[in-house]
Amino acid sequence: MPHTVTDHLLDRLAELGVDRLFGVPGDFTLAMLDHVEAHERVAWTGCANELGAGYAADGYARMRGLGAICTTFGVGELSAINAIAGAYAEHVPVVHIVGAPATATIAAARATHHSLGDGDFGHFARMTAEVTCAQAFLNAEDATDRIDHVLLETVERRQPGYIVLPADVAQLETSPASAPLAAHPGITNASVLAAFRVAAGRLLAPGASVAVLADILVHRMGAIERLHELVAAGRLPHATLLWGRRVVDESAPGYLGTYVGAVSAEPVRAAIEDSDVVVLAGVQFTDLTSGFFSQRLADERTIAVDPHEVRVGTQTFSPIAMADALAVLADLVRERAASRVATGDGTAGAVERDGPGTAGSDGPGTVGSDGPGTAGSDGSGTAGSDGSGTAGTVREPAAVAVAGSPHPVPGVETGERPDPHAPLGQAALWDAIAARLRPGDLVLADQGTSFYGMGAHRLPHDVVFVGQPLWASIGYTLPALLGASLAAPERRPIVLIGDGAAQLTIGELGTLARNRVPAIVVVVNNDGYTVERAIHGPEAAYNDIARWDWAALVDALAPTGQARGVRAATLGELETALDEADPARLTLVEAVVPRLDVPPLLRALAAAAAAANRSPR
Amino acid sequence: MPHTVTDHLLDRLAELGVDRLFGVPGDFTLAMLDHVEAHERVAWTGCANELGAGYAADGYARMRGLGAICTTFGVGELSAINAIAGAYAEHVPVVHIVGAPATATIAAARATHHSLGDGDFGHFARMTAEVTCAQAFLNAEDATDRIDHVLLETVERRQPGYIVLPADVAQLETSPASAPLAAHPGITNASVLAAFRVAAGRLLAPGASVAVLADILVHRMGAIERLHELVAAGRLPHATLLWGRRVVDESAPGYLGTYVGAVSAEPVRAAIEDSDVVVLAGVQFTDLTSGFFSQRLADERTIAVDPHEVRVGTQTFSPIAMADALAVLADLVRERAASRVATGDGTAGAVERDGPGTAGSDGPGTVGSDGPGTAGSDGSGTAGSDGSGTAGTVREPAAVAVAGSPHPVPGVETGERPDPHAPLGQAALWDAIAARLRPGDLVLADQGTSFYGMGAHRLPHDVVFVGQPLWASIGYTLPALLGASLAAPERRPIVLIGDGAAQLTIGELGTLARNRVPAIVVVVNNDGYTVERAIHGPEAAYNDIARWDWAALVDALAPTGQARGVRAATLGELETALDEADPARLTLVEAVVPRLDVPPLLRALAAAAAAANRSPR
Repeated sequence: MPHTVTDHLLDRLAELGVDRLFGVPGDFTLAMLDHVEAHERVAWTGCANELGAGYAADGYARMRGLGAICTTFGVGELSAINAIAGAYAEHVPVVHIVGAPATATIAAARATHHSLGDGDFGHFARMTAEVTCAQAFLNAEDATDRIDHVLLETVERRQPGYIVLPADVAQLETSPASAPLAAHPGITNASVLAAFRVAAGRLLAPGASVAVLADILVHRMGAIERLHELVAAGRLPHATLLWGRRVVDESAPGYLGTYVGAVSAEPVRAAIEDSDVVVLAGVQFTDLTSGFFSQRLADERTIAVDPHEVRVGTQTFSPIAMADALAVLADLVRERAASRVATGDGTAGAVERDGPGTAGSDGPGTVGSDGPGTAGSDGSGTAGSDGSGTAGTVREPAAVAVAGSPHPVPGVETGERPDPHAPLGQAALWDAIAARLRPGDLVLADQGTSFYGMGAHRLPHDVVFVGQPLWASIGYTLPALLGASLAAPERRPIVLIGDGAAQLTIGELGTLARNRVPAIVVVVNNDGYTVERAIHGPEAAYNDIARWDWAALVDALAPTGQARGVRAATLGELETALDEADPARLTLVEAVVPRLDVPPLLRALAAAAAAANRSPR
Repeated sequence: MPHTVTDHLLDRLAELGVDRLFGVPGDFTLAMLDHVEAHERVAWTGCANELGAGYAADGYARMRGLGAICTTFGVGELSAINAIAGAYAEHVPVVHIVGAPATATIAAARATHHSLGDGDFGHFARMTAEVTCAQAFLNAEDATDRIDHVLLETVERRQPGYIVLPADVAQLETSPASAPLAAHPGITNASVLAAFRVAAGRLLAPGASVAVLADILVHRMGAIERLHELVAAGRLPHATLLWGRRVVDESAPGYLGTYVGAVSAEPVRAAIEDSDVVVLAGVQFTDLTSGFFSQRLADERTIAVDPHEVRVGTQTFSPIAMADALAVLADLVRERAASRVATGDGTAGAVERDGPGTAGSDGPGTVGSDGPGTAGSDGSGTAGSDGSGTAGTVREPAAVAVAGSPHPVPGVETGERPDPHAPLGQAALWDAIAARLRPGDLVLADQGTSFYGMGAHRLPHDVVFVGQPLWASIGYTLPALLGASLAAPERRPIVLIGDGAAQLTIGELGTLARNRVPAIVVVVNNDGYTVERAIHGPEAAYNDIARWDWAALVDALAPTGQARGVRAATLGELETALDEADPARLTLVEAVVPRLDVPPLLRALAAAAAAANRSPR
């Protein structure tokens, strides 16, 4: 078999750590797929449909740093475009490879299947340009160079790229690449970095309390280790937004909980908002992760470390890579601690005056100071209590402080055990699941009761917790687990998803079983779109769904015993189902809960969402 | 409940004959859906996912002349966009209604869920503009006027329209419309029509043989009755393309069969290509319906009636509405017949010298003349035998003439009955289904073995046969049947679909059952994408799919007895399953056939497709 443009693409993907290509075949991709089948380092994983393949590639990319999907022109690529848009929104590098009609067919401009019939073969590329960071519609001239360009941009910008291969171009012979892909040069400017150090040093005055609020971009920029060094350097109290839970170790000392603006558990809110200085590491506030922009973090006391620049108070330093900025901050914190130890200030060993903060403890020695002038100061661009616009409304849920509590430490029982024979409810459901998580688990929680239900529970060490709170496309996690688990097969795969959400992407349950992913799939059967019921129309028929027999569905989609389905209507049944899940095959647990039972965190956010949708006419 | 912008939209939809809105709810659409639930004439039909809802709206529109889908911003609308693009390609008027964040939320340009997080809320509207004919992102100023504009354009242009309702705008109070939507004025120019009549009259000389080739645009332009009048006026021999089978009565005299260019059954090809004059009624040649542009129809002997213009030979007349042009042609044909009868030319009663043509008859009295100079002349823009470009290659399958035969008349046995106990194959499968079709049935055949398997069988009177050969998105028909059947509940609903295709959209099987559509769903289980195997990679793993238990699946998705699943591996089992299908509930028949068994018509087209994909580097 000759070495073709397709092989060049596959070689490059392998070089970047990709060993799977997700997709659905189409006649414009078939010849390309022969080369995938023959390739030594990249395998094909066929999915039930293209949206599932897109989500799978996204899940894979979230574990490996790059994912790839291959679809056919028009019908295939557009079916996947929601997944590509989601990857764009959530900074996930996925390359979308599309097999197109041959160059001569396109040139003839005739009514070809999978086109709009108008002779214009550029419609879908123009559509995709809105949700990708780099695009190439290949021709024979410079196909390999343009492939390299798109792949580099995709990896560097952490957003999707798009490569269209006409059927003939895909089969063009080409020499194997003579050199690896050019590594992107570091972006940090040394003198800017030095100036940043000076400014940050001033703000991090010896007496100032410091907290860290981290978010998902720390993961995306590959700076998690630097973040951990910063936190450890000063044993700094720290929290994450719901989006960024995977960037910290929630079992570590100093971890406060999740910060959700005014909807946060009070100790978490106070520890973050009342610190003298807050380091915002890779934070992007979104409506659902900030309690509808109810965070109160004044610019003048924040150091915001973004992917390519840092803001200290009102001063911005650019270009600085996130990892470099975090390393400087760790240095400064270390120096500060050393100088305080040297001058006898503070207790030896406890480098911050506050010691490791524990959410929920409220007495002396807790994190954060409550001095006048800090609490309530409004950061620019945040909705404070100033009564403007929607702010007055969306702050209502502040009274319900829910995130972070009541289970600060995994495995610790905080109350009486509910009756195992009583009907299952949301609280018992998430408690039971949280209690059974193990270090290293891979947990995907679908947007809805699952994501917010787990929001109040701490995760064991090294659990990778993945959600999609910005794009918030229900049904995402089931296919995403396929990709994530194939990317990280050493982790126990768990997906938590509602029944309404699972109906959107159910086909990939069969793909999970076909690929022998030994997942625990918890389908929360609350008889409809409960996340929508919480926002509006609790009893409305439009929030109802078709009723499926979930356990029977497993037998239908995995008929040769690759999977097992169990229905759990009580806590006892749930516990048994989880405890007896076969580690060698997929277990679907249908967890039956009341249709209007909603986790407190979701209830609070839903009220804010409803208010925003009613907002000024 | 106040009368809102949403109510205005619903009133207009009802006025245009739409009594269903398909979709999936989202928080930006919920308040709107309250008004749907309360509306007296428009009902909500929730689907398993948005792609299914889009296909359902398309199926509905193909029966009613307009369909509607409602989704939520970003995640919902993009999941449906493949369906919208398909409606655009296939000239189906579907209005896509999107619930968006409130105007104030958009103005704030913050990272809102279901957005890309970049503050730009126009991405998806720009994407959708590529596949819709009219768009409106509503604001408080002129919402109702712009709704009316999009609806009128959608209906008039027979392509999708797009309306974005921010959550607050949807709830704005407005007065009920004081007048019905303005009817679009007729486009026909009377003097142009008169000139057309003269030119057409010259071509339709008394001695000239005339045939009619009709296609889907006759349906789209609402001109089916005029077409039937034309055919009846001269008892003209006529054929359709595969796309346009529903525009004629295949049980009527004069019907030749389906014309697929060089891939046609020879009598059909000869009758069309060798006529002195061919009327092309609403024809759009596509690769898959023309045997890869292998039609031979010289401009100088064709009258091409398009939606808004007519071409006679090389002369074009515009603007003329299709129905008006067909009426003129019917007049001319009638006059010609009358003059011939008056002069004693021809047999009384048989107005064309050829009499009603029957495909397959080849002796004296058959349709078409074979005079020198007409056969082989190449029309402009068609691939003839001139050896240019891909034409030489794609004409290969011409040797396999398959369409139209071997079953010219429904219900007539043409050979020995196959052994009912032998394993089922494609030929016996389609014969058995065709033999059981009844007048008035609604038949949706998915692109693949189903669509082409039925291509060689005549349909009984008034069968509506729907496929999607231009957009060719597999999986389309299962959700489309939901919409089509709800739009025309008086017809017996039948869907023919492959196993690979059904996996793409299986969720809507539950929706069909939930809505108690008593469909016969034939799933052709050939263990993968056989349509792709026919083109390339017959044994390749990428053409394999997950193996499902289809009968068990029915019980899982319709667990309260609304449906029944049956497996048929022999002809006898298939016949029993079809004959015993309960008319009151859904029956899924899993028809097991060999994985490489392919209908002859599909085999011929697949060879041409493979050649096109290999074409000039």
